[in-house]
Amino acid sequence: MTNPSAPAVPPCSADRIRDDVETLATFTEPSHPGWTRRAYSKEYTSAREWLASRMADCGLRVRRDAANNLIGTCAGRAGGRALATGSHTDTVEGGGRFDGIAGVLTALEAVRTLHESGITLHHELRVVDFFNEEANAYGLSCVGSRALAGALSQRDLALTDATGESLAQGLARAGGDPASVADCAWTDDELAAFVELHIEQGPVLEQQGYPLAVVTAIAGIDRHLLEFTGQPDHAGATPMDMRRDALCAAAEAVLAVEELAGADGSVGTSGRLEVEPGAANVVPGTARVWAEFRAADRERLDAAASGLGTAAREAAAKRGVEVQVHPLSSVSPVAADPGVQDVLASAADRHGMATRRLFSGAGHDSAHMALLCPIGMLFVPSHGGRSHCPEEWTDPEDLAAGARALAQALVDLDRSADRA
Amino acid sequence: MTNPSAPAVPPCSADRIRDDVETLATFTEPSHPGWTRRAYSKEYTSAREWLASRMADCGLRVRRDAANNLIGTCAGRAGGRALATGSHTDTVEGGGRFDGIAGVLTALEAVRTLHESGITLHHELRVVDFFNEEANAYGLSCVGSRALAGALSQRDLALTDATGESLAQGLARAGGDPASVADCAWTDDELAAFVELHIEQGPVLEQQGYPLAVVTAIAGIDRHLLEFTGQPDHAGATPMDMRRDALCAAAEAVLAVEELAGADGSVGTSGRLEVEPGAANVVPGTARVWAEFRAADRERLDAAASGLGTAAREAAAKRGVEVQVHPLSSVSPVAADPGVQDVLASAADRHGMATRRLFSGAGHDSAHMALLCPIGMLFVPSHGGRSHCPEEWTDPEDLAAGARALAQALVDLDRSADRA
Repeated sequence: MTNPSAPAVPPCSADRIRDDVETLATFTEPSHPGWTRRAYSKEYTSAREWLASRMADCGLRVRRDAANNLIGTCAGRAGGRALATGSHTDTVEGGGRFDGIAGVLTALEAVRTLHESGITLHHELRVVDFFNEEANAYGLSCVGSRALAGALSQRDLALTDATGESLAQGLARAGGDPASVADCAWTDDELAAFVELHIEQGPVLEQQGYPLAVVTAIAGIDRHLLEFTGQPDHAGATPMDMRRDALCAAAEAVLAVEELAGADGSVGTSGRLEVEPGAANVVPGTARVWAEFRAADRERLDAAASGLGTAAREAAAKRGVEVQVHPLSSVSPVAADPGVQDVLASAADRHGMATRRLFSGAGHDSAHMALLCPIGMLFVPSHGGRSHCPEEWTDPEDLAAGARALAQALVDLDRSADRA
Repeated sequence: MTNPSAPAVPPCSADRIRDDVETLATFTEPSHPGWTRRAYSKEYTSAREWLASRMADCGLRVRRDAANNLIGTCAGRAGGRALATGSHTDTVEGGGRFDGIAGVLTALEAVRTLHESGITLHHELRVVDFFNEEANAYGLSCVGSRALAGALSQRDLALTDATGESLAQGLARAGGDPASVADCAWTDDELAAFVELHIEQGPVLEQQGYPLAVVTAIAGIDRHLLEFTGQPDHAGATPMDMRRDALCAAAEAVLAVEELAGADGSVGTSGRLEVEPGAANVVPGTARVWAEFRAADRERLDAAASGLGTAAREAAAKRGVEVQVHPLSSVSPVAADPGVQDVLASAADRHGMATRRLFSGAGHDSAHMALLCPIGMLFVPSHGGRSHCPEEWTDPEDLAAGARALAQALVDLDRSADRA
């Protein structure tokens, strides 16, 4: 997949990326923990005003669409389908300085590096700062990428937060135009490929010593609520063989989640568990487990759900406990395009960077962009695997290496993309 | 142990007991669930004023001691050591109409029945409504029986509730005299025996068709807090083999508690479990399990604690999780006197009531009275094993049968007790 006829991208600048990360981090909501910059906050709006000027500095033509996506465009020489890259700059409450941000700022550094080295792309390039990727108060995530993919529905826009404000109202408040959202969607004949760089948010690259990973697929996520109903009896006066202990049944389900996950990078987690009445001297009458599985294919998700249901029913039945399994949500897996994966791997290899393939357990804007075109993702190392917390960290040198691989991949895709 | 020379007690009246239960149940705290009558409430004070008059109606001389115990005395013919019986009339928040109450009202019915049938005891009889048996806001239970046994310490009296009020202040507010509590203790040469009737609070008698149980021992209770500390990682981005999942380790501990209990009536319960951060998409970083074991002997409690510690450490170690085991409290088991057990069983048998021996998993005032004299307990059936809830129920006919066995046992103990 290496394209030796394509020009080689020179090294990117860790210093410039560090400066941009530090500047963006100054736009942080006061009286919130960590580096909080939530969509719909005024700090987010200010940060994107700075980002728009930074895009313009790189020679990009900047616009904001009806879904409040910030898009910087570099016209191509040859017309035809465009290439796109980018990520997001909003954070979770108490989040860090790199999740999403790394993908936007390395895209800018890639554009700067190409420009300085005189490498021009034949195709139009679009650098996108997607609006509001993180889960918001209305109960939705990836608002901007859904809109670009034509997947932001009227039903989504009618979602409300705890105060009763709708997503449509929030979007308007943030500067978007909810009535025109449908018109801002891109079509599947205008894009050749979308590539996104993101922090790994996990420990694999750091522990195994890889500077970069090529993502094979973005996880499908199935969430289940298991509700066990037994009998809240006196913890002293009820013999073991006359109990209906909901927590003991739930404990078996937690271990079943752990046991059922694990193959081919699939994961399973019981992140939340509630017990009622929750007194030290009362046999638990009710226990609820929130369990999720993430996997690269639908078959694996279905098999895990089936296995968990069986394990939960067996654990309940042997204790005279009832169990109900409620499906909470189901997001299907999205495969990264094999051709784009190979371009990303060979671009990194050309500059001496070893890559490993990695499944992404987290959701990303790329999953929605896959509705439009072939997608691919690069992961850079996360220190200690920490993410969604103030300690989130990726070295500027790792970001610069990622930016160079991203720029090389854009050049390689540009040279090989369908020019029709 | 049957004493054929002792007079036979005639049947007791279910109607009178029912009336007393219904009247006592009218003293209930409004705007609290169930039949709430907590110590230190004005409804509890009013209920005991009624109870004092009811004691006087039975010919008892009534007094209240410095620990706010309500004591009705019937002088004996022969002097010597006294017999005592009774229980408590306070309830838990949202409690029922029988826990404790059954032991006080059947004692009154026993006295009435003896009086009406012309049976007089040689020894003094003390009927006690112990002050505040249930766990209070100061963090103590069995306040009255501790005081009578000389086991209510200055340290206990200095305990404070959430508002900063001390138990001493609460006791004074309820009508006691904390400065004189030490003087109200009974000595171990003034009592021949103490017997207490109580509802079973469990399902065994009802399920096995026994009208009564003779208690063999009152459980020792050891409580432990297991604190598992792992790492709160991204539930999607952290592979299974790089996790430090505190909840999975805790789930194994919950199952170990269930597995370690069960022999000879011992029980083990994990009644409370907390998970942090407790989000569906975050690997649990911390999990806390409140576990308790109850058993009739110290060796079994120690073995269970040791087994739990081993299981928790193994479950933690294989997941890279740390665990700390904090002992929270330890109450040693109290054996019922074998001679008193036999008197209770033969008294029931004399009137055609089959008994089975049963271990008491719950704590009782009798456990403190055991510091003073031989003790014994009778259990009457609890409908559905329910207790500490509004549904708590024992049929008046079962209470009347228990009252008759209690009265017969008092007569038999009276005739056989040391008259020195």
